[in-house]
Amino acid sequence: MLSDGDWQMLLEWTRIKQIPKGTCLIKAGELVNHAYFCSEGLFRLFYSISDGREFNVAFTLENDFATSYGAMVTGGPSNFAIQAMEDSVVIEISYETMQKLMDKSHAWERFVRRSVERLYIRKEERERELLYLNAQERYEAFLVKYPGLEKRIPQYHIASYWGISPVSLSRLLHS
Amino acid sequence: MLSDGDWQMLLEWTRIKQIPKGTCLIKAGELVNHAYFCSEGLFRLFYSISDGREFNVAFTLENDFATSYGAMVTGGPSNFAIQAMEDSVVIEISYETMQKLMDKSHAWERFVRRSVERLYIRKEERERELLYLNAQERYEAFLVKYPGLEKRIPQYHIASYWGISPVSLSRLLHS
Repeated sequence: MLSDGDWQMLLEWTRIKQIPKGTCLIKAGELVNHAYFCSEGLFRLFYSISDGREFNVAFTLENDFATSYGAMVTGGPSNFAIQAMEDSVVIEISYETMQKLMDKSHAWERFVRRSVERLYIRKEERERELLYLNAQERYEAFLVKYPGLEKRIPQYHIASYWGISPVSLSRLLHS
Repeated sequence: MLSDGDWQMLLEWTRIKQIPKGTCLIKAGELVNHAYFCSEGLFRLFYSISDGREFNVAFTLENDFATSYGAMVTGGPSNFAIQAMEDSVVIEISYETMQKLMDKSHAWERFVRRSVERLYIRKEERERELLYLNAQERYEAFLVKYPGLEKRIPQYHIASYWGISPVSLSRLLHS
């Protein structure tokens, strides 16, 4: 459990930012020094390949973290970008602050450990879903994982997440 | 840093197991109550699909952990199996023990946080490699990530990891 003191440290060491729709919180190729807690709005994490195609690999909704975690921890450049799909509000926390919080408090270390576990488990789930589920089942899994998101983003962003063409997704939804 | 006391707790609460080549440490569909530290040998993590095909998604070499982490943490069944590809030796640690270690020691909490980070970063890397690298580059990335592994396992297991046919991999290696 995080104590009042644990929360106090967080409030002193973070700041709130408005992120307009369309803005990239993190660009591909950039070094990453911050994580972002999404308090309002919505983000997509996506890769761009050389022929111009984009692949969404995850979404971040309210009350969840968005960052290029591997890049932040290893100090390398981000391989993907994170873009606001609505006007959004985030709490920005630097990696240095995260490390200070974890040094000072076992509870923060636990909080981060559990957050990383959640990130990891999502990747495991996506791996399983891509291997085992057909297009219809993937769409149903998407609805469960990201409740209400299908009403907030264009269908081609969902199709990109599942690696199917927008036409196939549209056919599926109207069959 | 883990103290002598931290290590002492580990030694009291774990046990060493011999795992003969071919044995599954974890089967798909099983509940998972343990993590395994591989001190000797080699494991593959793989999914089996209904037509009999198998997909390797990761390997565990010496001095690394093998488990179905998501299943262990969530209490659900494992979606994949973990099989010894050589006669192996593991240190078995129950999830209950892991939780006790983390409750008693900030240093163990940090150790687990970093281990999960490593797992997560590997998944991120694999995602990037599958999207951006051609077959030749994937093979080179494989050699860097798993040094010496190409001499210890049949080529079709490497092909399965990269989602290419054994024939394509063989052609690539002899071109």
